[in-house]
Amino acid sequence: MQPVMSVSDIEAFLESDFPQIHTDGRVFEMVEVTSGAIVMSLAPNERHLRPGGTVSGPTMFTLADVAAYVAVLAHIGPVALAVTTNLTINFLKKPEPEKLFCRAKILKLGKRLAVVEATIFQADEEEPVAHAVATYSIPPR
Amino acid sequence: MQPVMSVSDIEAFLESDFPQIHTDGRVFEMVEVTSGAIVMSLAPNERHLRPGGTVSGPTMFTLADVAAYVAVLAHIGPVALAVTTNLTINFLKKPEPEKLFCRAKILKLGKRLAVVEATIFQADEEEPVAHAVATYSIPPR
Amino acid sequence: MQPVMSVSDIEAFLESDFPQIHTDGRVFEMVEVTSGAIVMSLAPNERHLRPGGTVSGPTMFTLADVAAYVAVLAHIGPVALAVTTNLTINFLKKPEPEKLFCRAKILKLGKRLAVVEATIFQADEEEPVAHAVATYSIPPR
Amino acid sequence: MQPVMSVSDIEAFLESDFPQIHTDGRVFEMVEVTSGAIVMSLAPNERHLRPGGTVSGPTMFTLADVAAYVAVLAHIGPVALAVTTNLTINFLKKPEPEKLFCRAKILKLGKRLAVVEATIFQADEEEPVAHAVATYSIPPR
Repeated sequence: MQPVMSVSDIEAFLESDFPQIHTDGRVFEMVEVTSGAIVMSLAPNERHLRPGGTVSGPTMFTLADVAAYVAVLAHIGPVALAVTTNLTINFLKKPEPEKLFCRAKILKLGKRLAVVEATIFQADEEEPVAHAVATYSIPPR
Repeated sequence: MQPVMSVSDIEAFLESDFPQIHTDGRVFEMVEVTSGAIVMSLAPNERHLRPGGTVSGPTMFTLADVAAYVAVLAHIGPVALAVTTNLTINFLKKPEPEKLFCRAKILKLGKRLAVVEATIFQADEEEPVAHAVATYSIPPR
Repeated sequence: MQPVMSVSDIEAFLESDFPQIHTDGRVFEMVEVTSGAIVMSLAPNERHLRPGGTVSGPTMFTLADVAAYVAVLAHIGPVALAVTTNLTINFLKKPEPEKLFCRAKILKLGKRLAVVEATIFQADEEEPVAHAVATYSIPPR
Repeated sequence: MQPVMSVSDIEAFLESDFPQIHTDGRVFEMVEVTSGAIVMSLAPNERHLRPGGTVSGPTMFTLADVAAYVAVLAHIGPVALAVTTNLTINFLKKPEPEKLFCRAKILKLGKRLAVVEATIFQADEEEPVAHAVATYSIPPR
């Protein structure tokens, strides 16, 4: 499964068409685009943190959803507008109040539906802090 | 299943122990507490809205998670600190850029786990805009 | 949301087009069809039971999936062939080795996707033994 | 994360304590146990197949649940009795009426909860036919 957008293509698209992801400051960053997957990071600021020094659940949900959406986009191109229809997230352990990485891997890319697995991790990808699976509805092209 | 906290008990608890839900302004409001369920509302402001005049997915995730958490709290008391372990959300239709209501109904309240269904609606509860089911781990009391 | 098939219409359709649900004997029974929902029952036999006198998880999965599928069918008619794309099930408490009921309620019935909530219960519908939410892909009509 | 049971340990345990998985004949087979994961296969017989030559959804649910359960068992030992509390399954494409493989990988192994990802595939593990994430409640040891 070959991507049709590069890291810079995706950054330019998010800049122009998806500015709301920068509402809390420029916390999201594209890390890489590979065959069938992408990696993004989120550098939490005050509003993403929680008492006790951890990152909030909604912040992890947002990272998983944005990264999974971007993984689909990177493989079908910026034209199509995919919509999240379903997302299941498991919170596995308390993250440190530090940068989060999310690897979003496409499990299925169909004509009408895409299913993407998103694994959120910090130091060690083998010990994820959260794991999500999301379904996107792809409009007729 | 009888609640052990009233609407004002819950408001006071959120005020003192959960101030971060007011980060975006006082958008959350308790509506009612009933046997096994609670209703909360969220009045979206600019940062919850999306181009095209709708409410963002993360806003609905947050409302579902907060309301489900509060439903558990209302029935076990403010002492225990429940943690979200799993949440599945289905986005059913585009919400209007208006107040969202969430009815959080307890499906199971066990010693170690609680499972709560959260239905997000606007004008008509029979036509929800989103539906979630969340699991909370309850620490030993 | 008005159903387009009656209990006997559905029984006749399952008989002719879905005989595999009778593989383990005639355990499924239609109970009622209402606006936006249906109720089915499953009378477990030896192969649905587990040591310790309970009903197996796969039996509950199957009941939830069949009932949710039938709920969609009852509202779009027997023509369309819906396919399960996603199902989340929460097991809430150990069922008795007795008849299970499942109320399948349509949360969304769109052109391409339907989302159905399925609640499995025995004596008391307010204390369900399992709860599922399933998504069905509806082929173009 | 090191396993504490070998393939033959697991086969012996299933034989003695979990005979019901053989109800439909000896369709399940252990393939391998690795650090943090196991692989099992299911060779479908008539009762697992569906008209049109595919494998039934309940068969894939059962394989995912058994494999994920065995992955937990392989790492905590046969003593503890884990119970499935939650399972989300995505059906990705129609399987061939042939042997299914399931790689069950532990995402979290806590004191009270384990979360396992189960990927079901046939010829090509990179193009799975189904994907599940399951949570198990682990009784106090």
